[in-house]
Amino acid sequence: MRQVCFGIDIGGTTIKLGLVSQEGDLLEKREFPTQRELSAAFDDIAANMRQVLDSFPDAMCIGAGVGVPGPVLNQSLVRGCVNLGWGDTDVAQELSRRMGMPVKVENDANLATLGELWQGGGKGCRNLVMFTVGTGIGGGVICDGRIVSGASGGGGEVGHLPMSFRPDWPCSCGKYGCLEVTASATGIIRAAREFSPFKEMAEVTAKDVYDAAAAGDENARRVVDEAGAALGTAAAILGCVVNPEMVLLGGGVSAAGRALLDPVEAAFKKNVFPPCGNVRFALAQLGNNAGIFGGAALFFTQSA
Amino acid sequence: MRQVCFGIDIGGTTIKLGLVSQEGDLLEKREFPTQRELSAAFDDIAANMRQVLDSFPDAMCIGAGVGVPGPVLNQSLVRGCVNLGWGDTDVAQELSRRMGMPVKVENDANLATLGELWQGGGKGCRNLVMFTVGTGIGGGVICDGRIVSGASGGGGEVGHLPMSFRPDWPCSCGKYGCLEVTASATGIIRAAREFSPFKEMAEVTAKDVYDAAAAGDENARRVVDEAGAALGTAAAILGCVVNPEMVLLGGGVSAAGRALLDPVEAAFKKNVFPPCGNVRFALAQLGNNAGIFGGAALFFTQSA
Repeated sequence: MRQVCFGIDIGGTTIKLGLVSQEGDLLEKREFPTQRELSAAFDDIAANMRQVLDSFPDAMCIGAGVGVPGPVLNQSLVRGCVNLGWGDTDVAQELSRRMGMPVKVENDANLATLGELWQGGGKGCRNLVMFTVGTGIGGGVICDGRIVSGASGGGGEVGHLPMSFRPDWPCSCGKYGCLEVTASATGIIRAAREFSPFKEMAEVTAKDVYDAAAAGDENARRVVDEAGAALGTAAAILGCVVNPEMVLLGGGVSAAGRALLDPVEAAFKKNVFPPCGNVRFALAQLGNNAGIFGGAALFFTQSA
Repeated sequence: MRQVCFGIDIGGTTIKLGLVSQEGDLLEKREFPTQRELSAAFDDIAANMRQVLDSFPDAMCIGAGVGVPGPVLNQSLVRGCVNLGWGDTDVAQELSRRMGMPVKVENDANLATLGELWQGGGKGCRNLVMFTVGTGIGGGVICDGRIVSGASGGGGEVGHLPMSFRPDWPCSCGKYGCLEVTASATGIIRAAREFSPFKEMAEVTAKDVYDAAAAGDENARRVVDEAGAALGTAAAILGCVVNPEMVLLGGGVSAAGRALLDPVEAAFKKNVFPPCGNVRFALAQLGNNAGIFGGAALFFTQSA
């Protein structure tokens, strides 16, 4: 019988749910709004899972892997998801009770990293680091094929690495100078706004800054280089800590492609402990489906 | 039958070998010079193992865990140990062939960290980081009970974290500004030598600098605080990457005790991502035996 697994990515506004085969095929995908009320959200998820399963009567579903935007303990307990307005919730228990199947829960960014390892840009790796560069910076760390969750679910929070680039810029976490204040889209825009023409524009996107740098704007070039230097130094930090064979860049800013990768790789080479320097840099490939694949990978690739 | 295991710590000048019980008792310990010739060194180790085993006829030896001062691949292959003058050597195979028992090999600093986790300052932890502060800075990272070795055996090389404290000071690794150039005994002495009375002294030790700081010397205080700030910031970096529940400080400089721990903890609190801030700091407890216990722990605590 064909083995399948659900991957479910619970976000603040929508829930993405996919049925994935053991071979890594996304058989069906659904997306629906996240109900504010906890129990209603779980009922919604369970109802959608049942409908999807009804379309695959020959498949044996071995479980559901769930990503949530917050720290997770023991692949089960979610401690206060600010984005969801939930308190402490045993997501695995709630969903397992409704569906009668094993459920494992992980932080969404960690799960996306595992998805990329299994079926995306990190395929074939055992040791992988991902930076998801968007409004903030998320990410994940995989060591020897396993997600690094840490003692309280805070593993892989690479956006909050203390860096020296912008020590006076406050971060949403309450500290100053975290990686994401310099290298996220928000940071790139903030730095660019110190200069014309960005200073005068009503709206600026990170893409505007990358485009201007490509067109020869010196200030934009400096901003883009600084963001790349911060990310590359962060990758060098991770290099000597977990010694990955690959670093993936994902998120909205990664649309910049080589314009993002080149300064990151240059800063990495300059800062990494040489014996840990043999690292490939690439772009994430699964986009918004990374969490779904990661959820399935929790069952298909992770030993207990 | 009582299960026992060898822990063997191969250093540049001496080899430490211990027989350890499953309960964590060090039953016998030997120390002998490291022969320069590879085959002679292995013969020596095997002969000592046999002699030790002869004293414990009722024990069942399940294997030998070996630490070496260099990167190790697949718990087996040692790639060029500079300190030993060895080229690429399959240490596990060499020793296993001579002894007819399973052998696992790890980097010595990683193994010492595992030893502290099993029977030392990190007892009871699943997620642990250790900094061994001596002439240089070594260390190790344990995630969910397992050593982080990385893709090429370079995991846990925390002494080579790129830091911003002394960006112009060269490191033995060929880079500049690594954690160990600021926070090792060597770095502390170098910084202190910029000032009297250290400038004029024939020999300075890190202990001299800590003693002077305790006695109220302002310059020594600044040096000691900077070393602590570098270590604490490094601990904060590891905090959001692997989210340990505990950080251990070992090595010669850790003899300073609270004078070392206090500035480290202060810098950690200031720099760590708050959700990862619940970390206990303590001193390593096993000293030179940490590697022996770690070697045994490779068999008693690490799943395949």
